Amino acid sequence: MEFAPDATTTELVQQLESFMDEFVYPAEAIYDAQMEERIGVWGPPPIIEELKTEAKKRGLWNLWLPGEAGAGLTNVQYASLCEIMGRSLHLAPPATNCAAPDTGNMETLHLFGTDEQKEQWLKPLLAGEIRSAFAMTEPAVASSDATNIETRIERDGDEYVINGRKWFISGAMNPNAAILIVMGKTDPGAARHRQQSMILVPRDTPGVDIQRGMKVFGYDDRDHGGHAEIVFTDVRVPVTNILAGEGDGFAIAQARLGPGRIHHCMRAIGIAERGLELMVRRAADRVAFGKPLTDQGVIRDWIAEARVKIEQLRLLVLKTAWLMDTVGNKGAHTEIQAIKIATPKTVEWILDKVVQTHGGGGLSQDFPVAEWFAQVRTLRFADGPDEVHKNALAKREIAKLTARA
Amino acid sequence: MEFAPDATTTELVQQLESFMDEFVYPAEAIYDAQMEERIGVWGPPPIIEELKTEAKKRGLWNLWLPGEAGAGLTNVQYASLCEIMGRSLHLAPPATNCAAPDTGNMETLHLFGTDEQKEQWLKPLLAGEIRSAFAMTEPAVASSDATNIETRIERDGDEYVINGRKWFISGAMNPNAAILIVMGKTDPGAARHRQQSMILVPRDTPGVDIQRGMKVFGYDDRDHGGHAEIVFTDVRVPVTNILAGEGDGFAIAQARLGPGRIHHCMRAIGIAERGLELMVRRAADRVAFGKPLTDQGVIRDWIAEARVKIEQLRLLVLKTAWLMDTVGNKGAHTEIQAIKIATPKTVEWILDKVVQTHGGGGLSQDFPVAEWFAQVRTLRFADGPDEVHKNALAKREIAKLTARA
Amino acid sequence: MEFAPDATTTELVQQLESFMDEFVYPAEAIYDAQMEERIGVWGPPPIIEELKTEAKKRGLWNLWLPGEAGAGLTNVQYASLCEIMGRSLHLAPPATNCAAPDTGNMETLHLFGTDEQKEQWLKPLLAGEIRSAFAMTEPAVASSDATNIETRIERDGDEYVINGRKWFISGAMNPNAAILIVMGKTDPGAARHRQQSMILVPRDTPGVDIQRGMKVFGYDDRDHGGHAEIVFTDVRVPVTNILAGEGDGFAIAQARLGPGRIHHCMRAIGIAERGLELMVRRAADRVAFGKPLTDQGVIRDWIAEARVKIEQLRLLVLKTAWLMDTVGNKGAHTEIQAIKIATPKTVEWILDKVVQTHGGGGLSQDFPVAEWFAQVRTLRFADGPDEVHKNALAKREIAKLTARA
Amino acid sequence: MEFAPDATTTELVQQLESFMDEFVYPAEAIYDAQMEERIGVWGPPPIIEELKTEAKKRGLWNLWLPGEAGAGLTNVQYASLCEIMGRSLHLAPPATNCAAPDTGNMETLHLFGTDEQKEQWLKPLLAGEIRSAFAMTEPAVASSDATNIETRIERDGDEYVINGRKWFISGAMNPNAAILIVMGKTDPGAARHRQQSMILVPRDTPGVDIQRGMKVFGYDDRDHGGHAEIVFTDVRVPVTNILAGEGDGFAIAQARLGPGRIHHCMRAIGIAERGLELMVRRAADRVAFGKPLTDQGVIRDWIAEARVKIEQLRLLVLKTAWLMDTVGNKGAHTEIQAIKIATPKTVEWILDKVVQTHGGGGLSQDFPVAEWFAQVRTLRFADGPDEVHKNALAKREIAKLTARA
Repeated sequence: MEFAPDATTTELVQQLESFMDEFVYPAEAIYDAQMEERIGVWGPPPIIEELKTEAKKRGLWNLWLPGEAGAGLTNVQYASLCEIMGRSLHLAPPATNCAAPDTGNMETLHLFGTDEQKEQWLKPLLAGEIRSAFAMTEPAVASSDATNIETRIERDGDEYVINGRKWFISGAMNPNAAILIVMGKTDPGAARHRQQSMILVPRDTPGVDIQRGMKVFGYDDRDHGGHAEIVFTDVRVPVTNILAGEGDGFAIAQARLGPGRIHHCMRAIGIAERGLELMVRRAADRVAFGKPLTDQGVIRDWIAEARVKIEQLRLLVLKTAWLMDTVGNKGAHTEIQAIKIATPKTVEWILDKVVQTHGGGGLSQDFPVAEWFAQVRTLRFADGPDEVHKNALAKREIAKLTARA
Repeated sequence: MEFAPDATTTELVQQLESFMDEFVYPAEAIYDAQMEERIGVWGPPPIIEELKTEAKKRGLWNLWLPGEAGAGLTNVQYASLCEIMGRSLHLAPPATNCAAPDTGNMETLHLFGTDEQKEQWLKPLLAGEIRSAFAMTEPAVASSDATNIETRIERDGDEYVINGRKWFISGAMNPNAAILIVMGKTDPGAARHRQQSMILVPRDTPGVDIQRGMKVFGYDDRDHGGHAEIVFTDVRVPVTNILAGEGDGFAIAQARLGPGRIHHCMRAIGIAERGLELMVRRAADRVAFGKPLTDQGVIRDWIAEARVKIEQLRLLVLKTAWLMDTVGNKGAHTEIQAIKIATPKTVEWILDKVVQTHGGGGLSQDFPVAEWFAQVRTLRFADGPDEVHKNALAKREIAKLTARA
Repeated sequence: MEFAPDATTTELVQQLESFMDEFVYPAEAIYDAQMEERIGVWGPPPIIEELKTEAKKRGLWNLWLPGEAGAGLTNVQYASLCEIMGRSLHLAPPATNCAAPDTGNMETLHLFGTDEQKEQWLKPLLAGEIRSAFAMTEPAVASSDATNIETRIERDGDEYVINGRKWFISGAMNPNAAILIVMGKTDPGAARHRQQSMILVPRDTPGVDIQRGMKVFGYDDRDHGGHAEIVFTDVRVPVTNILAGEGDGFAIAQARLGPGRIHHCMRAIGIAERGLELMVRRAADRVAFGKPLTDQGVIRDWIAEARVKIEQLRLLVLKTAWLMDTVGNKGAHTEIQAIKIATPKTVEWILDKVVQTHGGGGLSQDFPVAEWFAQVRTLRFADGPDEVHKNALAKREIAKLTARA
Repeated sequence: MEFAPDATTTELVQQLESFMDEFVYPAEAIYDAQMEERIGVWGPPPIIEELKTEAKKRGLWNLWLPGEAGAGLTNVQYASLCEIMGRSLHLAPPATNCAAPDTGNMETLHLFGTDEQKEQWLKPLLAGEIRSAFAMTEPAVASSDATNIETRIERDGDEYVINGRKWFISGAMNPNAAILIVMGKTDPGAARHRQQSMILVPRDTPGVDIQRGMKVFGYDDRDHGGHAEIVFTDVRVPVTNILAGEGDGFAIAQARLGPGRIHHCMRAIGIAERGLELMVRRAADRVAFGKPLTDQGVIRDWIAEARVKIEQLRLLVLKTAWLMDTVGNKGAHTEIQAIKIATPKTVEWILDKVVQTHGGGGLSQDFPVAEWFAQVRTLRFADGPDEVHKNALAKREIAKLTARA
């Protein structure tokens, strides 16, 4: 269990921090201004492309990707970098091609795609030329239970025909999100976890009706392509578009969840750290009733609690990363659930205090805190609500401890 | 301490519920559609005017206003009505001319206005012809400490000259918000609570620069006129525009706080009740892992906790109303602080569970929950952060208990 | 819903407070000293008898008992008195013959006893000559589910034969606890809630083996007769000892729960109030880092939270009392569960802060706080754990709200 | 940051677990029985001496002690062992001579004692022949502020004369606690942290009046010598009894705090783990309303939360141990405070749920849970209340973050 940054990580952290200091943080105001001008326009503002160019030039690209195609980092190595990127949530991850859901989609294509699928979709994704979306959640059912999925993928000769309704498909409002990975049922009569399949659906396929962007609190998240509601009506794709094979959908979903979750958690820790900094600075700047807010006992209590919580959380995320590196995603199953349970709740608690220290400003567009809160809040039901994960984790704990008795 | 609804209240509750059932709830979808078409437009959508006409016809108008000018209700009587209106937060309060900040502004004019001021501003406000705003909070300082206020109101002959910057001035983006009540300092050298004055500033006075709408979580709240940032540069109004007299600003602010807070709390309880209903219905509708969510122990725990919390909260609000009715706002000081501390936190807890039961939908525009959460969250620092109120309440408790020892 | 003290209550509150000030509070040190000398001795120390004599003389006796046999008070009237008695938990309730479990047992006899049973047991209990116990909880099963009860009550001619094991039978270690009310099954094959019966068993009946006192944290609670583990082996009592009839046990248990719970809650509020006083005084007395603890923001936050919590809790208890008075225990079912859920948790939170303000002393024998904490902690599973009550309350809420939909 | 157990640790863990399984756990019932017989007797029951003999024979002795005199383990290595010992809190630590306050006292003598002091006191302590106490806390003042200490240590020729009152002096009721380390002021006029000194006072010195044992909840903790209140009246010891020099008391106190706290936290994690086991087994054994408690959603939620909390906590404790090993106690200052803040609160939360799952039994002498709760609760103000530590930690965080800005 070795968590300390090694030489590679230290080196990359320095490079990434330089990039953040020189390019990303200064670009935040530009980003805000461009976003203000782009109301109703889906997709990233121009500054993101500029940052991508710079990041690529510096080799800060696809850092999340293990093996030769990417930076070849372990999860522990990537953790420190991902946390730093979380500090500028809207800019740093897309700038370095490390943003969800593309990372998960690229990983899925990398692991399960055919050579043709990789050539057509993985290659431009790795190059940052197109983006992608992952269509799983449905409005009509509790999607945390995969057997509830109602979208159908039916074979008809050399084609699959897709019918169904999805929502909260992040990124899909972006016209440049060229490819959708769609989860549906190929065989509703099969065993519980063999009913589902995943299939590649180009966004411009006839029958794909991208109806509207779902909001999160009041945010449309238009910079990264929002959260689409999509209706699939008799959408036809060639049979070669299936990922792995029929019935593999649940297994693929499980495989992508591990990295997806840990990246979310790493970024959330970056948010918490930057939030804590904002809180302390604001409190140091404001005077009420004759002393700066940093002299108020209650605010100090928040600061101390925040620090103590962050430290524990980061260690759990690092341990999980280390387990994924050493025993694999399956061996790290409990820990992956644990960070999914612990992280959003903890960071939400901290951000609530950051807001409170800022007063009205803390919820406004002048600070990033309310938007962070919205993002982190969604993590409490992304990939299934925490309650489902807690139930599953408890079942394993019960099995383990009663077996030992 | 008599809280049960009397005959008047029962009668009015029935009338209001009929109005809600027949007009308000059915209008919610219309409201949503009209708002969707009015992106970037400040002020209420047309459906609100229709509802106002109907409410007026039914005598459901200015229910908040004691005495002959209004419905003449006690705070206890009004509480049951205000809670019901809170259930449809964007529609019912403006439809009945019971919305903040107008109620507070009308009350202020009622109590402290000259006959001329009443004729010019109170009359059209009571008639629902114009709306108003209250300009107190400043971006540069911790406004919970009134001595921090930097806006200046300086006498120059027969005029006052106002200079300063305010933000989160709710309603002021609405072009129909004809009149602003502005808090500023007339004498920075006076005793701590005699430095401030309030003055009437017509929104179209030269030098009033309404710069932008502040957002709350991503919401612009354009239906009720948003939350403006306003710069006052050499704004000149006649000396007759002062409310009461120079130095009375702090006292006026205190006087309006009581009713304002209790109305917010009453409405928040209405939100909590409707939220609980939404939670239960959603949980009853959704099946996961073979049973409806209402059979999940954790969700039942939330439902029970929500009910127990709401009951306690409502009783405290009613007791506070009863105290205000019987011993006055000053005598109810501790209780007014208590409900200000207890209500937002409690309702926020409940709404968090409502969101969680809804999954992604709970944060989206398809349900009112996230927007309620945003509204209730702001109450935790409206009129000063909870921490300031807790500190003050504790000081009095300490004084009381150490005196008795 | 009228909660304010009426003339009778005001009068009795004054009388009770005089008794507390003149006799009870001064007796606390005597009680402590006598208890210190009585290690290993079960039953009240002599000072309690002295207080009983005085209370009786003053008419402060059986205040809990409605009707002519007692003080004839409503639940709302009694609430204010019961809270005051809770302030001196070990002394005031037994001094006034208002202590559990006798009140519940007397009420049970009053409602369900035959004339003979009343003559033999109720009369001396009302006179404070003997005490009693209520034997329901069993060590081997989850007693919150009444169908789990394993104790058997089997008819054999003119006698019932009782076999079983009970524990946490409060008061039963006291040799003066002359009579036990025992819950057992007469017909395990009957309908779910008709299997149980209650029967009167004199403590000195052969086969009643009072084995040991269960402790609560480290306390043996010997002053009120502790918490006994009792084995019943072929214990024979005449058939006339049955309460009401065979199969009525569950109904009797339900009937006594309402008053029992509300009395516990009223007393717990008295504890919370006295705890808050202790906290404030301690904080005012102690100086650390240059200022009294009452100037520490965190401690002020606790004080404010405590006050706000107590106010809400008391109102809920009063409303429950009022409902019991006006619509009966059954009509107040939800509220009785609500106070059972809310009270211990809230008061525990407050006492935790009282302890923390006192440092080590707060957990020691020099202050009553740790013992209060222990008492209040047990309420979280007395009459079934809170979780069972929350589940039941939620079920009714779900039924109500889904019906209305 | 390497946390995984190395070969030495793995080997020692196996040896210790064998000792626990073969000797310690089976001895718990014997311990309970012997304690029951020893009411009023201060000091360990005979079974402890038997365990000591066995532990010594197996080389499981002074495991805490770095260097050649002890097991020579790092803090990280010791952590795994200390956690295991915490599982049987009353038996394993004294059996292996790893119990507080002796470990801290031995470390103090080791670091600051003269050769004579070591020969006389450290040697028999290391051999487990005598025990010791540490007298710091005073009843009259907030001892978390060392400048409050009122005990005087005044030089009179070749002697120091000690006058003062201490309480909660753990272990000192044990007649075998031969030596007390007493903190007092030698120079009240010196700089804030140079006023205090520490001095060795044999327990049988004339003027040492050990008055009574303080209880914690109702426990006297007589097995390890309780928590004494001691009055020192003109107690004279030779000047050679001073530790280090006059004015070094505060620095010595700081030096011993690090290891003391981390040991407490390690043991508390062992408590939490065993508590979780008890909870799961109890829940698996109990059936209510037709299913085992392990099928109840709320209990599963507790189990999952407990596991997630323990994992985070253990990692923080391990990181702290690693920092102490690598950069020293001073460099680990923040982390030592962090574990002191996080551990008791977290473990208390878990134990509360363990209690609740057990019903009444959970608070009784039949399970160790209530006693664990009492122990862990005291940690929230041992070495100063958490609030003081949070305040200090926040101050450093504020300094660090505002400097960086």
